[in-house]
Amino acid sequence: MNKKAFQDCYPEELSHCYGCGKNNKEGHQLKSFWQNIDEKNVIASTTVARCIPDIKYTAVPGFVYGGMIASLIDCHGTGSAAAMAHKVENREMGTLPPLRFVTGALNVSYLAPTPQGVELELVGTFSEVKARKIIVEITLSANNVICAKGTVIAILMPESMMKANT
Amino acid sequence: MNKKAFQDCYPEELSHCYGCGKNNKEGHQLKSFWQNIDEKNVIASTTVARCIPDIKYTAVPGFVYGGMIASLIDCHGTGSAAAMAHKVENREMGTLPPLRFVTGALNVSYLAPTPQGVELELVGTFSEVKARKIIVEITLSANNVICAKGTVIAILMPESMMKANT
Repeated sequence: MNKKAFQDCYPEELSHCYGCGKNNKEGHQLKSFWQNIDEKNVIASTTVARCIPDIKYTAVPGFVYGGMIASLIDCHGTGSAAAMAHKVENREMGTLPPLRFVTGALNVSYLAPTPQGVELELVGTFSEVKARKIIVEITLSANNVICAKGTVIAILMPESMMKANT
Repeated sequence: MNKKAFQDCYPEELSHCYGCGKNNKEGHQLKSFWQNIDEKNVIASTTVARCIPDIKYTAVPGFVYGGMIASLIDCHGTGSAAAMAHKVENREMGTLPPLRFVTGALNVSYLAPTPQGVELELVGTFSEVKARKIIVEITLSANNVICAKGTVIAILMPESMMKANT
């Protein structure tokens, strides 16, 4: 198994995302990994990412702001989609051509206030896997309590965005 | 009409949000206002916010990252909900007791890449207005092109969060 984070396998010119790009020094640099790979039924595999948001990403003191939670779910979703797309093609991330996904739609339900200063765990499962569209369902937990759930409809990056950056 | 931004009327102890709190010096400090007030049918009123995201909030170079867009929609939604709640009670924001809203659910559809270096305009309309639940529909435009649409289901802040900060 490739132990590099999904996002660290993105092409250099597509690694500037504030949420997860390794080339964005001021951003969150979220790192997503396979949690479990089901080789017999690949789309039953799960992904995971963990982070402790910086204290500045406050909602009201003591709690993480909703935009941060949306951002983490978004980037874990598109990262998981990219990883799955490569897995379905039975090749490692980082091999060519890159399959980079953008968000078509993002739905987040905030179930409980998300505490600050605690490691957040995002777990992704897949509800739909097609060549150009992958839907990722994500839970975000703190202290083993689910604080938010999200759905990311991830779309293969349009060539116009790829070309503009290569 | 009160020309202060909705968010600048929040209680001091509830003004730390990274997206819109005036007391969060590192955050976006989004400012929302009434765009049009329909005095005969208050819930037909509309709200507006404008901002140019800092260049660091990149998706891929040239475009704003999805988490920022979600954050702006979120904060314009909860701000608009707070303003509407006060308007329905026929009193100015900043009068007591404060009516502060949090996000129950956030849905964002990304319709087109959002360009950087351009003023973004968020316009909010109201599809449901109840004492404890207000639904705000938001468009986010750049150069008069709608780049994203969002729905914010805003819930009156639970007393547990209010008490924790007062």
